[in-house]
Amino acid sequence: MRILIDMDGVISDFDGKFLKRWRERHPEKLYIPLEERTTFYVKESYPEELQPLVAEILLEPSFFRDMMPMAGAIQAMNEMNQMGLEVFICTSPLNAYRNCVLEKYEWVENYLGADWVNRIILTKDKTLVKGDYLIDDKPDITGMEAIPVWEHIVYDRPYNRDVNKRRLDWGNWKDILDFKST
Amino acid sequence: MRILIDMDGVISDFDGKFLKRWRERHPEKLYIPLEERTTFYVKESYPEELQPLVAEILLEPSFFRDMMPMAGAIQAMNEMNQMGLEVFICTSPLNAYRNCVLEKYEWVENYLGADWVNRIILTKDKTLVKGDYLIDDKPDITGMEAIPVWEHIVYDRPYNRDVNKRRLDWGNWKDILDFKST
Repeated sequence: MRILIDMDGVISDFDGKFLKRWRERHPEKLYIPLEERTTFYVKESYPEELQPLVAEILLEPSFFRDMMPMAGAIQAMNEMNQMGLEVFICTSPLNAYRNCVLEKYEWVENYLGADWVNRIILTKDKTLVKGDYLIDDKPDITGMEAIPVWEHIVYDRPYNRDVNKRRLDWGNWKDILDFKST
Repeated sequence: MRILIDMDGVISDFDGKFLKRWRERHPEKLYIPLEERTTFYVKESYPEELQPLVAEILLEPSFFRDMMPMAGAIQAMNEMNQMGLEVFICTSPLNAYRNCVLEKYEWVENYLGADWVNRIILTKDKTLVKGDYLIDDKPDITGMEAIPVWEHIVYDRPYNRDVNKRRLDWGNWKDILDFKST
C-alpha cells in the first residue's frame, strides 16, 4: 500500500508559522486565526490591500525551512514506515519557487532524516503520481489525469470542512485508512 | 500521449559542463572524453583517487544552472508541446541536493520559460509517475513499481550503447516515438 502525503498544512505547520510572523510583523493589522480561515490559500482570506504583505512573508527565506512539524505527523510517518507502507511526500512548490524548493528538502532532512529526502516527490500535478491514498488538505486536487489512481483523503483543517470526502488527522489516521494490501 | 523527459544528459548538457570544468581545473589530470565514457555515473569512470575532485565539480554552486541545453532539445520539447503531447520533465536530484534542486528549476525557467517550471517532477523514483514514455539516458530505471506504466526509451549516449531498448536522440525522435493516441 502506497500513501502519498502532502507537506504544507499536513506534516509542516504552514499556518502556525505564517500567523506567528504575521502577528510579529503587523501586530496592528487584521489577524485571522486558523479557526476562522475559510479559504485554502491564506492570501485569499485577507483583504486585497493586505495580500502583498501576506505574500511577502510566504516568500521570504527561511519561511518553509522554519515551520514546525504538525503535532503527531512525524510519529505517524515513522509508524507507517515501520508498518511496511510505502510512504512518499508529495508536495507542490509555490510558483515563486526560489526559497521553497530547497527549503522543503531541508525541512524533510531536518525533521524526518536523510532517508526521507529520497521519498520527496515535488510536482505541481499530483494526479500523475501512482498511489493508493493522497493525504492532502487542499479541497480539490486536479491535473492531467481526470481520475487519479489514488483516493484523496482530506487532511482535516478549518478551511476544508465543507469538502465531502473521507478526512483524517494525525490523531485518528489508523481508524480512517483501510490497510487493504498489508 | 504523455512523455516524461529526464534532464541531465538528455535536455541539459551535464557532460559538456563537467568536461569543460574538469579541463579548466585539472588540465594535468586524466581526461576521459564523452565518447570513451563507459559508466553512467561520471565519477565511476575515473580512478578512485580522482573521484573526490569529480564530485567537487558536480556539487559546486552554478554547476547545474550553467549547463548548456543539449543540441535540439529545446526545439524538440517546444515542438512536442505544440503537437499537443503532454510533456513533463522528470528528474532526480543528487543525494547532495543543496545546489542542484533549485538550479534545476532555474535552468528550466531560463531555457524553457516559466510555464515549463510547472512541468517539473522532481523524484528519486520515476516508476511512480504515470506516462507513456520516459526518455532517459540511464540504463536501468528502477523503483517501487516493478513494471512501470511507461516505456523507457533510452536517450542515446556513449555510456548506454549496450542497453537493449529503443533509443533516440533529438535528431530522430519523431521517427522513434509512436504517436499512438494523438
